[in-house]
Amino acid sequence: MIERYIDAALGKTRADVVLKNGRVLNVFTGEVQRGDIAIAGGKIVGVGSYEGEHEYDIGGKIAVPGLIDAHVHIESSQLSPEEFAKLVVPCGTTTVIADPHEITNVCGIDGARYIAEASKNTPLNVKVMLPSCVPATAFETSGAVIGGDDTQKYLQEDFIFGLGEFMNYPGVIGKDPEVIKKLEAARALGKIVDGHAPETSGEGLNAYIAAGITTDHECACADEAEEKVSKGMYVHLREGSATRNVAENCRAVTAANLRRFLFCTDDRHAADLKANGHLDNALRVAVRAGMNPVWAVIAATLNAAECYGLKGKGAIAPGYDADIAVFDDLEHFRCTLTVIGGKAAAMDGIPLFETGAPALPEAVKNTVRVGQVPPERFRLSLQGKYANVIRIVKGGVVTQKVVREVPSEGGDVQLRGTDLCKLAVVERHHGTGNIGLGLLEGYGLWGGALVLTIAHDSHNIIVLGDNNEDMSAAVAELRRIGGGMAVVGRGRVQSVPLDIAGLMSSLPADEYIRRSEELLQAAYDLGVSRDYEAFMSLSFLALPVIPALKLTDKGLFDVTKFDFCPVDAAPPAEEGAEAPQE
Amino acid sequence: MIERYIDAALGKTRADVVLKNGRVLNVFTGEVQRGDIAIAGGKIVGVGSYEGEHEYDIGGKIAVPGLIDAHVHIESSQLSPEEFAKLVVPCGTTTVIADPHEITNVCGIDGARYIAEASKNTPLNVKVMLPSCVPATAFETSGAVIGGDDTQKYLQEDFIFGLGEFMNYPGVIGKDPEVIKKLEAARALGKIVDGHAPETSGEGLNAYIAAGITTDHECACADEAEEKVSKGMYVHLREGSATRNVAENCRAVTAANLRRFLFCTDDRHAADLKANGHLDNALRVAVRAGMNPVWAVIAATLNAAECYGLKGKGAIAPGYDADIAVFDDLEHFRCTLTVIGGKAAAMDGIPLFETGAPALPEAVKNTVRVGQVPPERFRLSLQGKYANVIRIVKGGVVTQKVVREVPSEGGDVQLRGTDLCKLAVVERHHGTGNIGLGLLEGYGLWGGALVLTIAHDSHNIIVLGDNNEDMSAAVAELRRIGGGMAVVGRGRVQSVPLDIAGLMSSLPADEYIRRSEELLQAAYDLGVSRDYEAFMSLSFLALPVIPALKLTDKGLFDVTKFDFCPVDAAPPAEEGAEAPQE
Repeated sequence: MIERYIDAALGKTRADVVLKNGRVLNVFTGEVQRGDIAIAGGKIVGVGSYEGEHEYDIGGKIAVPGLIDAHVHIESSQLSPEEFAKLVVPCGTTTVIADPHEITNVCGIDGARYIAEASKNTPLNVKVMLPSCVPATAFETSGAVIGGDDTQKYLQEDFIFGLGEFMNYPGVIGKDPEVIKKLEAARALGKIVDGHAPETSGEGLNAYIAAGITTDHECACADEAEEKVSKGMYVHLREGSATRNVAENCRAVTAANLRRFLFCTDDRHAADLKANGHLDNALRVAVRAGMNPVWAVIAATLNAAECYGLKGKGAIAPGYDADIAVFDDLEHFRCTLTVIGGKAAAMDGIPLFETGAPALPEAVKNTVRVGQVPPERFRLSLQGKYANVIRIVKGGVVTQKVVREVPSEGGDVQLRGTDLCKLAVVERHHGTGNIGLGLLEGYGLWGGALVLTIAHDSHNIIVLGDNNEDMSAAVAELRRIGGGMAVVGRGRVQSVPLDIAGLMSSLPADEYIRRSEELLQAAYDLGVSRDYEAFMSLSFLALPVIPALKLTDKGLFDVTKFDFCPVDAAPPAEEGAEAPQE
Repeated sequence: MIERYIDAALGKTRADVVLKNGRVLNVFTGEVQRGDIAIAGGKIVGVGSYEGEHEYDIGGKIAVPGLIDAHVHIESSQLSPEEFAKLVVPCGTTTVIADPHEITNVCGIDGARYIAEASKNTPLNVKVMLPSCVPATAFETSGAVIGGDDTQKYLQEDFIFGLGEFMNYPGVIGKDPEVIKKLEAARALGKIVDGHAPETSGEGLNAYIAAGITTDHECACADEAEEKVSKGMYVHLREGSATRNVAENCRAVTAANLRRFLFCTDDRHAADLKANGHLDNALRVAVRAGMNPVWAVIAATLNAAECYGLKGKGAIAPGYDADIAVFDDLEHFRCTLTVIGGKAAAMDGIPLFETGAPALPEAVKNTVRVGQVPPERFRLSLQGKYANVIRIVKGGVVTQKVVREVPSEGGDVQLRGTDLCKLAVVERHHGTGNIGLGLLEGYGLWGGALVLTIAHDSHNIIVLGDNNEDMSAAVAELRRIGGGMAVVGRGRVQSVPLDIAGLMSSLPADEYIRRSEELLQAAYDLGVSRDYEAFMSLSFLALPVIPALKLTDKGLFDVTKFDFCPVDAAPPAEEGAEAPQE
């Protein structure tokens, strides 16, 4: 093959493919040069004056290296890797570092393996990390447990690229033996370890980095990004659907520290990908926020390739993989051509590859392993008149712990006339029969139930309702469709399947987007406040690491105290105040 | 060990070593920050406020990451790796990428292995490349041949880091099958391939790079450096003893392309290292030439580490190897402390490590494998009156081909009264008995002989003299001392041993420098022109790739025609002109 590169580079033989008359962004010099890009054997062999068997005239447009998403949970698109690729490749994305944290918490290593295998049906380069936090916490029942010994074993699998975001900052600082085992395993194998350490600084941050963790995508502000970069971390500028830090954090980028910044999307939903794009969107946001557009491209290409040791990626130069994105300009970043491995993979927003229907291995199917849950299981019996209640806060991720007087009758709370709903987390992985029960205030739902198999991070069934019958029917619907989301109420049952581990749909992207929007509308029709994304806000109510009061299959969890707490509460000190701390 | 890093980073336990009150150059931000550098378990765990078991107060001085020489032939120091380290570590050098091209041409892979093994007696980090051009050309007899299959095998040896400078540019462009095999082997193993491609550009350069060659240290001018960097090469700014490109090539460095520039010394002699330093000298030269001193340090540290994938090297930050150089300032670069792996390795110019006497494996000893060479073997019999003569040009590397009328008597040329000497290259590796004979004009030697076992690149014995007896005695002296250099004349024989492969001395550096300077003086005393470094200029006369006329053990070689040529010449067209091209 090297002979072929040489001949094509010399112009002695025609290249396979030539992008003619381009303006080519040179990430090594920051300059835009005119020339043809010659490709042979999947590699770029030269920029200059070349002829090829196939030629694309890109006259006037700007060719940049294919964009690299340095950290993404493909599951958050709620699509199969195949459908995910069909949305992001037309945006100029050619490589993603995928952290299958969600599916691995459901299916274990087979979930990660599925992401790797399914990605092979697409031209997108997908590097799969091994999730480091399975389960994410000890306060819930996950589908799988990956301990230190497992980590050591799995990191040696060919399809595993590195160790995924290390969310357990306290475990690192506290030298938890299982945590240390995982970090030692990555170190011994020379595998990169991604970080996740919001709001850390100083000596704690030194320790976290010294432990071998080299990236972070959780900087809340430019100062935090500056410190992390100054300590040698690579910092990801993140533009997800919910969490968007690009505009703020790109202020930290200077000519001197540029090489340590990357871009990522982390979590980005199908509808958002479809409507607003992927990394192209992140670049638009950065440039609009004042970032030098050439710097932005360098961050999204060469820097990401260097950080992750992706040899041959991140530049348009001889010897590099022919992964190229052609944009109209460096302001709107409208992608008109994506080339991967020397082949046109998308043009004018349309993917040029077929994947067929997603092939699902047994491991990711039928993951709703729960028996019938009759209405009685949702009865919530209080000892007294007061209850600790989860009050949702606008935005839907953080909650407050409040105490409310809740009437009971016949061994069950009576919610009519209140702004309270019952919230339940039904364990769905091992048939334990665990059901955590609690009360949620402020969501607005009335006369029905919402249910979902996405419930961070263990992804049990989370169901919200104002009556036991609809809650029971909602769970039954998810049993029937093998995971997904449903709205039950006023005599109707509507659902959308998430048949891949209860997290992702095997539907085509367009159909999934349409049906999930209809379902969302049905949820709002039941009164859910528009302050919340009816399902996604629900999915965070089971995450026992974000303040203040959450619910897992094991019960109500006070994040501030980092311990379980009963639903029963002592009477409040004064009306409307927060509960006194027992 | 990770637990130790964490505790020390947090300040929960004292660090092993702390450099107190430093000004620390942060290569990620380009800023100088005040702080203590805490080291535990050989790693930097933090910069901040720390206490340690051992503390060095470096108040006011500037700590930078240990310097990395990205390309050096240790053999060119003419010292053992142990003595080389004692000279360069006090200069702030902590890592070198060593290309044992010279010793491998003599001893084969065992030569490279010796460099790797001997380096372990020192704290210096030495990464050993596999020479790619053994022999350098087909026109001479080398001590070893490393073909494509050997390359594939040796690249898998643990002590081999990558493939050394690929000097055979025509072989790459011409797709020589052995060349391709070597490049394919490196590609398959993911090993870096260093380049050596002076004055290449355009499509030829594209082909050379597309073949997998990623660095170059031979740029003659800034424009050449700019083009190479723009095509994705890493370009080494070189400051050797003979070849010095830093002042010129650092003009090519910009804020945008900085990350692709490194520093190297390539070939630097013991006396030069002693008198003028190593990479510290290169940094001084760069700064004097106007390069931003912070950029210069970044090039010599982080950039080199990134280019060669030296994880954990090139920065002072948590998790990085504790390789540190402390300089008085960023102008004079006077190194006062060198730390390697967390241990003080040199202070105020004095190495703090002992190596003992170099241990020499059999493979590198007794490499002068030649029988007695009696005076008659140096008789040069001409058919006619004219001879093709090597005329040395000031500088000593390039030569001219001239035709001279040379009287003969009794079957031998008569040199009395001319400015000619006999030059002979005596094969010394395999006992072939090959002796190449020629004539050299302009060196000035009279009444004796000089001899040397360094003769690029096959390192046969090269001997220059004006009489057969002294030439014979000179070769006999090198047989006696097992390689080296000698001056014979006016009744005296003086020599300095190069007992390691005939290339390097096992003497302590100071003694070697003193004795070789005495020997040099003896050569000048025999009339050698001060235009030349008496021995080193001689060593290039056997290198059949530099114009115009050279001599190997196989005979006189016309580099312009790229073929052998006889000593006998046709009469010149006019007096004093260059020889007509036959």
